[in-house]
Amino acid sequence: MFFANPRLQYPVRVDKPNPVFARALQQAIGGVEGEIRVMMQYLFQSWGSRGPMKYRDMLLNTGTEEIGHVEMLSTAVAMNLEGAPLSFQEEASRDPIGGAVLNGMNLRHILSTGLGATPENCNGVPFNASHVYASGNLAADMYANVAAEATGRALATRLYGMTDDAGMKDMLSFLIARDTMHQQQWLAVIEELGGMEAQLPIPNSFPQSQEKSEFAYAFFVHDADGKVPEGRWTSGPSLDGKGQFEPMLSKPLGEVPQLAPARPDGGAQTEQTSTTPPAGVTNP
Amino acid sequence: MFFANPRLQYPVRVDKPNPVFARALQQAIGGVEGEIRVMMQYLFQSWGSRGPMKYRDMLLNTGTEEIGHVEMLSTAVAMNLEGAPLSFQEEASRDPIGGAVLNGMNLRHILSTGLGATPENCNGVPFNASHVYASGNLAADMYANVAAEATGRALATRLYGMTDDAGMKDMLSFLIARDTMHQQQWLAVIEELGGMEAQLPIPNSFPQSQEKSEFAYAFFVHDADGKVPEGRWTSGPSLDGKGQFEPMLSKPLGEVPQLAPARPDGGAQTEQTSTTPPAGVTNP
Amino acid sequence: MFFANPRLQYPVRVDKPNPVFARALQQAIGGVEGEIRVMMQYLFQSWGSRGPMKYRDMLLNTGTEEIGHVEMLSTAVAMNLEGAPLSFQEEASRDPIGGAVLNGMNLRHILSTGLGATPENCNGVPFNASHVYASGNLAADMYANVAAEATGRALATRLYGMTDDAGMKDMLSFLIARDTMHQQQWLAVIEELGGMEAQLPIPNSFPQSQEKSEFAYAFFVHDADGKVPEGRWTSGPSLDGKGQFEPMLSKPLGEVPQLAPARPDGGAQTEQTSTTPPAGVTNP
Amino acid sequence: MFFANPRLQYPVRVDKPNPVFARALQQAIGGVEGEIRVMMQYLFQSWGSRGPMKYRDMLLNTGTEEIGHVEMLSTAVAMNLEGAPLSFQEEASRDPIGGAVLNGMNLRHILSTGLGATPENCNGVPFNASHVYASGNLAADMYANVAAEATGRALATRLYGMTDDAGMKDMLSFLIARDTMHQQQWLAVIEELGGMEAQLPIPNSFPQSQEKSEFAYAFFVHDADGKVPEGRWTSGPSLDGKGQFEPMLSKPLGEVPQLAPARPDGGAQTEQTSTTPPAGVTNP
Amino acid sequence: MFFANPRLQYPVRVDKPNPVFARALQQAIGGVEGEIRVMMQYLFQSWGSRGPMKYRDMLLNTGTEEIGHVEMLSTAVAMNLEGAPLSFQEEASRDPIGGAVLNGMNLRHILSTGLGATPENCNGVPFNASHVYASGNLAADMYANVAAEATGRALATRLYGMTDDAGMKDMLSFLIARDTMHQQQWLAVIEELGGMEAQLPIPNSFPQSQEKSEFAYAFFVHDADGKVPEGRWTSGPSLDGKGQFEPMLSKPLGEVPQLAPARPDGGAQTEQTSTTPPAGVTNP
Amino acid sequence: MFFANPRLQYPVRVDKPNPVFARALQQAIGGVEGEIRVMMQYLFQSWGSRGPMKYRDMLLNTGTEEIGHVEMLSTAVAMNLEGAPLSFQEEASRDPIGGAVLNGMNLRHILSTGLGATPENCNGVPFNASHVYASGNLAADMYANVAAEATGRALATRLYGMTDDAGMKDMLSFLIARDTMHQQQWLAVIEELGGMEAQLPIPNSFPQSQEKSEFAYAFFVHDADGKVPEGRWTSGPSLDGKGQFEPMLSKPLGEVPQLAPARPDGGAQTEQTSTTPPAGVTNP
Repeated sequence: MFFANPRLQYPVRVDKPNPVFARALQQAIGGVEGEIRVMMQYLFQSWGSRGPMKYRDMLLNTGTEEIGHVEMLSTAVAMNLEGAPLSFQEEASRDPIGGAVLNGMNLRHILSTGLGATPENCNGVPFNASHVYASGNLAADMYANVAAEATGRALATRLYGMTDDAGMKDMLSFLIARDTMHQQQWLAVIEELGGMEAQLPIPNSFPQSQEKSEFAYAFFVHDADGKVPEGRWTSGPSLDGKGQFEPMLSKPLGEVPQLAPARPDGGAQTEQTSTTPPAGVTNP
Repeated sequence: MFFANPRLQYPVRVDKPNPVFARALQQAIGGVEGEIRVMMQYLFQSWGSRGPMKYRDMLLNTGTEEIGHVEMLSTAVAMNLEGAPLSFQEEASRDPIGGAVLNGMNLRHILSTGLGATPENCNGVPFNASHVYASGNLAADMYANVAAEATGRALATRLYGMTDDAGMKDMLSFLIARDTMHQQQWLAVIEELGGMEAQLPIPNSFPQSQEKSEFAYAFFVHDADGKVPEGRWTSGPSLDGKGQFEPMLSKPLGEVPQLAPARPDGGAQTEQTSTTPPAGVTNP
Repeated sequence: MFFANPRLQYPVRVDKPNPVFARALQQAIGGVEGEIRVMMQYLFQSWGSRGPMKYRDMLLNTGTEEIGHVEMLSTAVAMNLEGAPLSFQEEASRDPIGGAVLNGMNLRHILSTGLGATPENCNGVPFNASHVYASGNLAADMYANVAAEATGRALATRLYGMTDDAGMKDMLSFLIARDTMHQQQWLAVIEELGGMEAQLPIPNSFPQSQEKSEFAYAFFVHDADGKVPEGRWTSGPSLDGKGQFEPMLSKPLGEVPQLAPARPDGGAQTEQTSTTPPAGVTNP
Repeated sequence: MFFANPRLQYPVRVDKPNPVFARALQQAIGGVEGEIRVMMQYLFQSWGSRGPMKYRDMLLNTGTEEIGHVEMLSTAVAMNLEGAPLSFQEEASRDPIGGAVLNGMNLRHILSTGLGATPENCNGVPFNASHVYASGNLAADMYANVAAEATGRALATRLYGMTDDAGMKDMLSFLIARDTMHQQQWLAVIEELGGMEAQLPIPNSFPQSQEKSEFAYAFFVHDADGKVPEGRWTSGPSLDGKGQFEPMLSKPLGEVPQLAPARPDGGAQTEQTSTTPPAGVTNP
Repeated sequence: MFFANPRLQYPVRVDKPNPVFARALQQAIGGVEGEIRVMMQYLFQSWGSRGPMKYRDMLLNTGTEEIGHVEMLSTAVAMNLEGAPLSFQEEASRDPIGGAVLNGMNLRHILSTGLGATPENCNGVPFNASHVYASGNLAADMYANVAAEATGRALATRLYGMTDDAGMKDMLSFLIARDTMHQQQWLAVIEELGGMEAQLPIPNSFPQSQEKSEFAYAFFVHDADGKVPEGRWTSGPSLDGKGQFEPMLSKPLGEVPQLAPARPDGGAQTEQTSTTPPAGVTNP
Repeated sequence: MFFANPRLQYPVRVDKPNPVFARALQQAIGGVEGEIRVMMQYLFQSWGSRGPMKYRDMLLNTGTEEIGHVEMLSTAVAMNLEGAPLSFQEEASRDPIGGAVLNGMNLRHILSTGLGATPENCNGVPFNASHVYASGNLAADMYANVAAEATGRALATRLYGMTDDAGMKDMLSFLIARDTMHQQQWLAVIEELGGMEAQLPIPNSFPQSQEKSEFAYAFFVHDADGKVPEGRWTSGPSLDGKGQFEPMLSKPLGEVPQLAPARPDGGAQTEQTSTTPPAGVTNP
């Protein structure tokens, strides 16, 4: 269960409100790289955790931290909206050239929330929990979390570069540092459990004897001219120590699939109930 | 640009069609761990690739391979639907106990496609491109790809275990092997570029001097009783070689945020236009 | 900011795991009447709160409580999945009639989470934050919260009736009681602020002189035969004490709208660039 | 069944078309506070109505009225788009400063509809029927309807304030008046049926003896420091006359949940198949 | 504006309620082939209609008819849910084999609506207005409408075949007939305006001199082996009378795209800021 | 299976990058009229094809072509983003008037992709596979494809008009030509199979004797005043040669539906468990 301290984890200060930056910040709230996503991801991973309890505990701590990041960013959005124009006439009176602010705003910040944040991304697309990974596989989840924190830190540094508001830069420098740690943290689990050799391929509980091993370390070339993009992945030992990389020209090993014709009572056209084209349909 | 060979990359054979397994297979087509997702992810990463061309090329090859995996799985769904009952009366005549097949099917396999696959997951939720990562950051993308292939291989092994159809097991053993390679392949890019020391924190182009470095390698404890879930992430050198892990009890460093009161013309209640409760509202 | 106690707010016990009930419980996690929704709704209302701080504080408390409800329900889902069959062959060996369990399950509970909860509803539709109300209007939010708790309590009582598992009934009897309180709580805010007379119409900050007052307390009859569905809403004083209810036959007060013809370079058909039908198109 | 009169319910006039206001108006069509939502909500509530027919009839009337509101707003959007620039060059020739109109438009108004409305909100997010409440519980539905009309009227007043177009203000003053009535109307149902005492808690058909009554009127405090946000909800009789409000410090009544370890064949990592950390994983 | 007659357009009768068929019927309400979709499509096309008023009028009539179809189907769903089991224990007492009904139901029919319809498809996926076409181009809309009615009639005939309930079959035979007419109706518009010669290519207002005419009537072969799937589309005059069909082997006419390297401050990895691989990265 | 040539199908050149046009181009990638949609639609139609193989082959060729169109457009988006400002300060230094570019951009082009395309539409709404038609009915699919190409060509011509960049116009003139062919191609299938007389009504496999034939060629008038919008659809022979068009005033043929009252244990209000209003509820 959870408790709240009404104070923020880290100070949020906006020196010069910018309603368009409020829109940009929404990406860090409800975007695929954002904090609602990691909050939900770590909490659901924790709540569904099977195996040693230490990982459940760790995930619960960090998931709980992330709720506070959503709070900080929501506060930052509201603060960037202070003083936003509520109408075309108001904007025009301040800015005779016009259009600059309202055009670039998420209008829901005016129309739907009265100058507050929404659980949406920077385009106003609502957060969608389909992008929450809690796979029941600890290693897969750790890599998903690294991906979340890597794209999350990229986002935060881009927001940092987008503004010259000292308060916002300060807040973002904190969030960026946290993302640094979180990238480390999930990789440390892999490391603690023996690293790539022990953890790969994921899931490591599936007997590799049951996979088509001849294709398990081959880079498939699908270039129409057979050109091989060489790299660490086309030669040398694999990173799990269990195979050797090699390039292989991909060729069709299967046949042309032919499905049964449609049933007469299945809602198809009559002409589909046979694989023979109907009488009169000859190719010119 | 692209070309197709009408033959399949690998044989798809169904010995005993199972319309409920057809539903399950949809997860590998349109699920968050599925093949449409990786197909789109690798192709968009390739098309937006900036920097050395070799990564664009590699991504294009593997993205192209994945289109063929969607094709194989769609064929497998259609084959598992051969002979599915189209009505309650038909089912009852075959199976006097009733309900067993239609109940467990994705009814759209009958009603919407006439016994073919859909770009949906196993619950019939349409594929949604919000879960496609193409971040413009090579390392972030590589970890996102590892996550996709790790959850993808977990899914494929679960499907492998769910069925005892020899044809389906054969197809899945191929896809599982490909997922093994693809996990390796993306990690090989990290390795090729110097490994974690060189690539972390992501993005490595952001000067770490601009992050709040005192929080960059600290594990924040949010346990209400201050219990620390110790592990590789609470002590020792960080994996990027740039810091030392340590636990830190998280405390509010910020203040209670107080937003400006609502504007009288902003669509709030009048009582919100001041931070003082209205007359007559005293706390008991 | 937030803290977690790893213990649950209230005991979660499952006496006889039921994987189909696990599917049903998902509605209380990720459904429109579920706990993720209220958690997000109360937290976003709190974070965007403008006006007296006491409402921000109250919302923060209850939003924080709701995170723990998602935790309880996620735990209940995982516990109901203990022992679920992972394959058709396993199910058949236990249940010779077959199909009963896998058919009724959310297959993602096997394929995607390894027997854990998802942030989805009972049909596997991911939670979508579009149904989070944080309107910036305190009274509107309170009514939205009552609606959420009323549908939420209806859901919880339906789940209570659906099962005869004593552990699950105990957990639900707790959640039902909390929903009772939460319905009260939001209405108490309306009451504290003067009740319907003071708070309606919402927003009460908009001058009613600017609305078309002749239509502000009239029940519009759209029955083709002019039949009036009489009730408290067709006569007597309005509940805000500001008008008298009356029925009114709705009639078109506007004209048939006629838009300008399409521009020749606007992507329409040429025939649409005039409001006159083209030559040769006469009505028979 | 339904009939249409091609005239509008109320005049729609645009004195000075504003394509950015057309974008804003979309919120009233396809937004969560918009008219498609209430149209669908009231109609589905009517069509699924169980119990006295008078409520079905009332809902059908108002649902039918709302279709005409969508029509009015769609007309208003199209009229605000008359004369919108179709290209960058056209805009530049009219407005040498540039960018003001196209930047702020929903580009689908040009690209997808040829200057007509879409069933989307002001950010171009398509209407999603997940936010349609038809709960089968009359009182819950009435509160959901009040919430819809309260947020709807807040939206309409914000749009009213956003523009100084006399025609648009006139149309909105009509819609605002209708929202006033609709708020009243749904509350009148609660009143007619005995008010809060009779109708709460919702559903009133569930025996309160089966809920954990000690928690049914307690305000749970989740503040980390135990601070109580006092108000009408922390003392005095409850609004349904069935209890006494009181504050209660929330404490964990449950235990730390411990799920069974993962099955070896369930797609987890091998290390998760026991709750004991693997050999070699000692906490530093 | 709109009016309602509380009677249904056509009788809806269910002889033997079937809660699983209720789930199937949902596809005709909220599915991509369903009635909400056509209702919205025809109404939005009407409301945005530019050009001769007769098409606006026709669309309004048929859009209004479709509202009544949603009503009929929603009624049919509710009637098929009469007597549905509300619990596992109730089902077990009726049906000792168990599982047959609840497994196959949309559980929201119990949990969320109290035995009423939802605006969802047969998988419980909410209707999403993204699939509403109102393109501002009359001919494009007419073909979109034909597609909607063709898939709609396929769906209705599949539902007709799925049940042997005489009441349901009667209702569906009416809806199927209406779909027959509606297919005709939209094609009649094309015919009235001169048929394919006059209306194609759509939009016919775009000067064909501005398209790359050498590719305007060529069937592009993307088969890897250059095999041509011959048919009416590979030779003979085109259907608009403006060209000659021919097959053409597709070849890359463009170059390999090379984007500029990433900016150092753009959130990419440092290695992406040049197109040259970093020192030490040599291809083996 | 599939192969790729890294060269583009047709040259993509941007003479003067325009980040707002990059946003507009996204509609052709991920919009409902866009290329991801047709790519998925044709491929899924091919993979689920039942009946003569020639249609499967044709669909596979064109679906494969479309992948390359997504590639071209994604490249065009990235090229239009070259040189886009990454910050407010950068924009201000270039453009002292300010706001013109960032306001009109999809901010995800900066924040999420580092100046690359996304699988989204011009409003940043992710591609959603719910709008992919693969109905299992060849004729229905062909009309769906015509609709896709008709709206697609309308979109492409609107984009053509929106820009005066010679490179972009050249690319679009190619895509427009391809849409011309694709409209033809799908209609040629209908023609090859006997045209409207043979193919309509769709599905032609359903015996028309089982539809309510008296309503199969009647235009239903739902105008409240009985006004008939006359046209080719109200008189003369139907286009399938199987009936005569006629107008018919629509009248309710069914009754007012009356559902059973709610069950006492079903989560409704007690007052709904009877169709009689409760005591004391009299109509004024």
